[in-house]
Amino acid sequence: MYTIGIDLGGTNIAVGLCDESFKIIDKGSVPTLAKRDSELIVKDMAELSLKIIERNSLTPSDIAYVGIAAPGSINANTGVVEYSNNIQMKNFPLVEIFKKYFPAEKVYIANDANAAALGEALAGAAKGAPTSVMITLGTGVGGGIVIDGRIFAGGVNCAGAELGHTVIEAGGRQCSCGRRGCWEAYSSASALLAMTREKMHELSLKGIHSQLFDEEKKDGKVSARTSFNAMKKGDIYAKQIVEKYIEYLAIGITNMINVFQPHVLIIGGGVCNEKEYLTVPLNKIISREQYTRDNPNKTKVVTATLGNDAGIIGAAGLGL
Amino acid sequence: MYTIGIDLGGTNIAVGLCDESFKIIDKGSVPTLAKRDSELIVKDMAELSLKIIERNSLTPSDIAYVGIAAPGSINANTGVVEYSNNIQMKNFPLVEIFKKYFPAEKVYIANDANAAALGEALAGAAKGAPTSVMITLGTGVGGGIVIDGRIFAGGVNCAGAELGHTVIEAGGRQCSCGRRGCWEAYSSASALLAMTREKMHELSLKGIHSQLFDEEKKDGKVSARTSFNAMKKGDIYAKQIVEKYIEYLAIGITNMINVFQPHVLIIGGGVCNEKEYLTVPLNKIISREQYTRDNPNKTKVVTATLGNDAGIIGAAGLGL
Repeated sequence: MYTIGIDLGGTNIAVGLCDESFKIIDKGSVPTLAKRDSELIVKDMAELSLKIIERNSLTPSDIAYVGIAAPGSINANTGVVEYSNNIQMKNFPLVEIFKKYFPAEKVYIANDANAAALGEALAGAAKGAPTSVMITLGTGVGGGIVIDGRIFAGGVNCAGAELGHTVIEAGGRQCSCGRRGCWEAYSSASALLAMTREKMHELSLKGIHSQLFDEEKKDGKVSARTSFNAMKKGDIYAKQIVEKYIEYLAIGITNMINVFQPHVLIIGGGVCNEKEYLTVPLNKIISREQYTRDNPNKTKVVTATLGNDAGIIGAAGLGL
Repeated sequence: MYTIGIDLGGTNIAVGLCDESFKIIDKGSVPTLAKRDSELIVKDMAELSLKIIERNSLTPSDIAYVGIAAPGSINANTGVVEYSNNIQMKNFPLVEIFKKYFPAEKVYIANDANAAALGEALAGAAKGAPTSVMITLGTGVGGGIVIDGRIFAGGVNCAGAELGHTVIEAGGRQCSCGRRGCWEAYSSASALLAMTREKMHELSLKGIHSQLFDEEKKDGKVSARTSFNAMKKGDIYAKQIVEKYIEYLAIGITNMINVFQPHVLIIGGGVCNEKEYLTVPLNKIISREQYTRDNPNKTKVVTATLGNDAGIIGAAGLGL
């Protein structure tokens, strides 16, 4: 049997046809056009799925189930998107509407960060690990928890795993969620960008030259990559930024290890492309700071391997 | 059928005979005498269990299983106490030794904070709630996680749920675990005591009188209760201490709500005797700060109801 995994993003709808080992056999995407009527978005999700099924000489009856990863607060039990900022849905019965356009009995839905965590657990960096935690460093710090091979999305509602919204510095930086000092305000790619801009502003006021400015010129902008790139060329100020960033990241990761002791903790999002420049210093701090530093059984901290496919694959695994 | 729940503490061994609804029918205790040979401690645990069974006109064959709650790092799979400071055990096969002295096929073991959380979930403050998180405010901040009615003790090892060892103030107060700024360093009963002493020292240097000193005189010592008692009598300095304490406590609890969204979050330990003096201001902060402030389904934050029996009852439920 095959499954369909759909990753509904703010920009694109990505659909993958997966086999039983969660390999993507075929995939495609269409623009989300997020501002239009939600039903039209769902219709496109269904039509793209049907098109991919057909071009692989299959029919919907060959599909065991469809899984959908969607941004925002998702009620996996009712199939309702309770709230999503990115795609402007509010209490929208996405699963019910999807079934209007796609002949499937079993349609599952989950939050996209949770689905990505499941994807990495099924076929990526945490393959074979019963328990894993994934953090995604992007605009925010997304979180996904997999316990005994299943997503844990929260108890009283499906809005748990907001790992980025745990305070690591009481009274600290303002977070978008309204609290002060959230991990997200220190460890998101946006936070790294802000720290880089701050340092560059400071340096430029003092008339100090840094490779950071050369990187900005080369790329035409300052990004979350700027400080890593300048550091790799030996820039001391860039090194300070990266070290500070990794220090905060290590605090939050160590917190999650002390809570979950997962087999694997996966770092996803653009920043994880820095690979060993990120993980080597990070693991040095974590191995010193974690509660179980003397326990031979420890969490492996690794970068994600599935990239943008994690959502599709996780969605395709929701029916397990 | 009946079960035996044993709570092995640093001071006392408490044993309870429980019925199927986790009511304690009979219980007893003997001193742990923690510094003696560990096998003698386990022998006493077995003998007290047998005595209680006998005095209720039962035999060991009437006991479905025995559950043991023990302090420290417990491997629930192997029955080994990997490390415990309180009772000086290291890689000690407690379950195996217990079976030498007690004729039971099924003997389960768990960390005491985890067992207490299960106890409150089975018969206490979280009865009927599938998912709950318990924190115990004592010398430290202990944690226990119950998901779908079962203890979650960690993935790669059984040393998870160290909720007190999550940093809430980067670079903050020194914690006993070696990190700086752990929740435990702000929200344990010991931390409240330290904050009270600090404030009293400051006031006494300034020659300012406070009800805090009267409470000290009355009780013969400063304790974690001193500031709450003085506050209840209208003392402004005591109020400042309590407010600061509750502010930090709310940060950690809100973090755990954002991660787990448990049906119930239970506060145990001596401090929870302050009941609404603790929970009313606490809930005010949490309801403002939590990520799901607009979600109708929210975590209930309550104080524990089983007191010292939580460990016995949780132990008695380990075989479920």
